[in-house]
Amino acid sequence: MKFNNRNVYISPKARIGQNVKIGDNTTIYDNVIIGDNSIIANDCIIGEPLHDYYHNENYDNPETIIGENAMIRSHTIIYANSTFGKNFSTGHRVTIREHSKFGDNCRLGTVTDIQGYVEFGNNCWLHSNVHIGQKSKIGNFVFIYPYVVLTNDPTPPSDICIGATIGDFSQIAVGTVLLPATKIGKHCLVGAQSLVGGEYEDYSLIIGNPGKRIKDVRDMKNRETGISHYPWPYNFDRGMPWIEEGFEKWKVKNGFEND
Amino acid sequence: MKFNNRNVYISPKARIGQNVKIGDNTTIYDNVIIGDNSIIANDCIIGEPLHDYYHNENYDNPETIIGENAMIRSHTIIYANSTFGKNFSTGHRVTIREHSKFGDNCRLGTVTDIQGYVEFGNNCWLHSNVHIGQKSKIGNFVFIYPYVVLTNDPTPPSDICIGATIGDFSQIAVGTVLLPATKIGKHCLVGAQSLVGGEYEDYSLIIGNPGKRIKDVRDMKNRETGISHYPWPYNFDRGMPWIEEGFEKWKVKNGFEND
Amino acid sequence: MKFNNRNVYISPKARIGQNVKIGDNTTIYDNVIIGDNSIIANDCIIGEPLHDYYHNENYDNPETIIGENAMIRSHTIIYANSTFGKNFSTGHRVTIREHSKFGDNCRLGTVTDIQGYVEFGNNCWLHSNVHIGQKSKIGNFVFIYPYVVLTNDPTPPSDICIGATIGDFSQIAVGTVLLPATKIGKHCLVGAQSLVGGEYEDYSLIIGNPGKRIKDVRDMKNRETGISHYPWPYNFDRGMPWIEEGFEKWKVKNGFEND
Repeated sequence: MKFNNRNVYISPKARIGQNVKIGDNTTIYDNVIIGDNSIIANDCIIGEPLHDYYHNENYDNPETIIGENAMIRSHTIIYANSTFGKNFSTGHRVTIREHSKFGDNCRLGTVTDIQGYVEFGNNCWLHSNVHIGQKSKIGNFVFIYPYVVLTNDPTPPSDICIGATIGDFSQIAVGTVLLPATKIGKHCLVGAQSLVGGEYEDYSLIIGNPGKRIKDVRDMKNRETGISHYPWPYNFDRGMPWIEEGFEKWKVKNGFEND
Repeated sequence: MKFNNRNVYISPKARIGQNVKIGDNTTIYDNVIIGDNSIIANDCIIGEPLHDYYHNENYDNPETIIGENAMIRSHTIIYANSTFGKNFSTGHRVTIREHSKFGDNCRLGTVTDIQGYVEFGNNCWLHSNVHIGQKSKIGNFVFIYPYVVLTNDPTPPSDICIGATIGDFSQIAVGTVLLPATKIGKHCLVGAQSLVGGEYEDYSLIIGNPGKRIKDVRDMKNRETGISHYPWPYNFDRGMPWIEEGFEKWKVKNGFEND
Repeated sequence: MKFNNRNVYISPKARIGQNVKIGDNTTIYDNVIIGDNSIIANDCIIGEPLHDYYHNENYDNPETIIGENAMIRSHTIIYANSTFGKNFSTGHRVTIREHSKFGDNCRLGTVTDIQGYVEFGNNCWLHSNVHIGQKSKIGNFVFIYPYVVLTNDPTPPSDICIGATIGDFSQIAVGTVLLPATKIGKHCLVGAQSLVGGEYEDYSLIIGNPGKRIKDVRDMKNRETGISHYPWPYNFDRGMPWIEEGFEKWKVKNGFEND
């Protein structure tokens, strides 16, 4: 039904792995490397040349490396000079600019916009319509919900660019803005529609405009159960590597023993 | 000018009505049913297969039913297994996931993102860039303005999914977030950039972060006229079925006599 | 690498300047005029017919005029009946409806949505995912950051449409909503995630929900330097016409002597 090889362009300089499917109307430019068993759906552009291409006759497209088992949904645009670990997936219409580095098992939702020059660890899940400014640095197992924006210019417009950082396991809820240079620790929860600047210690619940640390997430008791959902890895395992043995055992084997 | 039949793919298993126009570069997959006099513009994907397609050799695409007189604008993606009443229209780049059910005369604005497993009544108008989370349930004549988000996970991340519900004739203004399980009654007005949780009775004006019921919308007097614009159906009829006879008469004939 | 002339449609009634490059899968409709040395990248639609096209057999597509040296990035849709000065650029997936007028050197970021019937001066830079409602009027050197929305209906839904106006050199930070009929003076700074209505004098710092004038931007001293970054043209010149001689000299020669 899909993958009819209609109007597909693959550069002879691209390196396509085994058992890769390329959707109709998709374009893959020079020096794109796609891992085995990946799916690139319809109407995508992979390895979009950088701006220099338009001005430099000797332009050579930098490598774009997509790990094995990727699922790139339709209308996604990925610039050259980025790296994606295995099991990378996108929703539709995702835009990823150059110099973006993603670990394994990352997922980006529909319309999400990665401005480039960013770094993500493993297992980060971004929902629809997230905007990640340049120089953002995100840890592992960080989930970011719709319409969150990470900014980087403290006095717009200027040439200063200081991205936000987010520690492992932290959650940034819908509609929140992180101001430039914000540092969110590990296992934090930032509430919906907050406007957050400054630095926050691990396990902070941060809420409001302006955002403030309200309490320790471990003290957020569920009204019915009397138990805190956080740290969430003890209570959520769908798609997580600890799904079989539980977070308690998994974390010790995987270098997260202090979490 | 348009509809040159360039690079169009229509599955032989699709059923296309009379006098339907299909735009260039558009793909229509198996078991899509399109009603008479509809327009599907350029670069659309209709009947996108569900995730199971990639894993199941015997996958059979579920039906996608688009009523008569539809206008689907360019770059829209609609997954299989959804139903749309007559006169359905979308702006550009709309994404609609599976198990979405829309009544008659619904309109979705540019970049709007319907996450699937949702239900809309008749005559709902969503403006640009609205995000509707799974399990949302929306009545009739509901208008939702740009950058509104309906959420569903009370303790992210979790496997709990409780959508918001919105009653007939309610209006959700720009940039507002409805928290999981929020229940908005009929004829309510939720002000711009509010963060709203909980349950609200009919005719509520709800504003703020956190959102609160401020007053009855019928008590919002216009400074110049001294009259309330709400309930709005008495004061707005562009594109509405009561445009000829007025809301007062129309509502009695159409089962809205208590409105 | 790009510009392979694959699946390109250019109306014989379009007028394409010298040294223009048109990307693969792009469609250019009747009466589009593109200035010399422009680049229209892949998968774009330029000169999209207005709604009347579908109902009027004698429809004649109005002119769409794009000045010289434009850079229209991929997946952008521009309706007929708009005018763009020289050096116009867009990110990806920009949507521009009819009756939009842009001066020289304007830039629109990825996913930005211009609803039409708007007017921009010269050198306006809109970042990603900005939404500009109809009847907005924006001066020169105005910068608008991601997820900002300019609205126009004071009592939704209604047929009243009063756009916001923004004076020269003003900055609207991320996630802010301007309510209908808002008037922002020159050299103002509107802080992130504000909800702003009313009228504001020149040099206002406006912050909050509801937004209020907090102080004069010239009194915002930098903690380290003790100097205000604002008015910013004295401190930022990347891509600005005063980059060589400085704002002080430039403004006098160019009619901005009172700034």
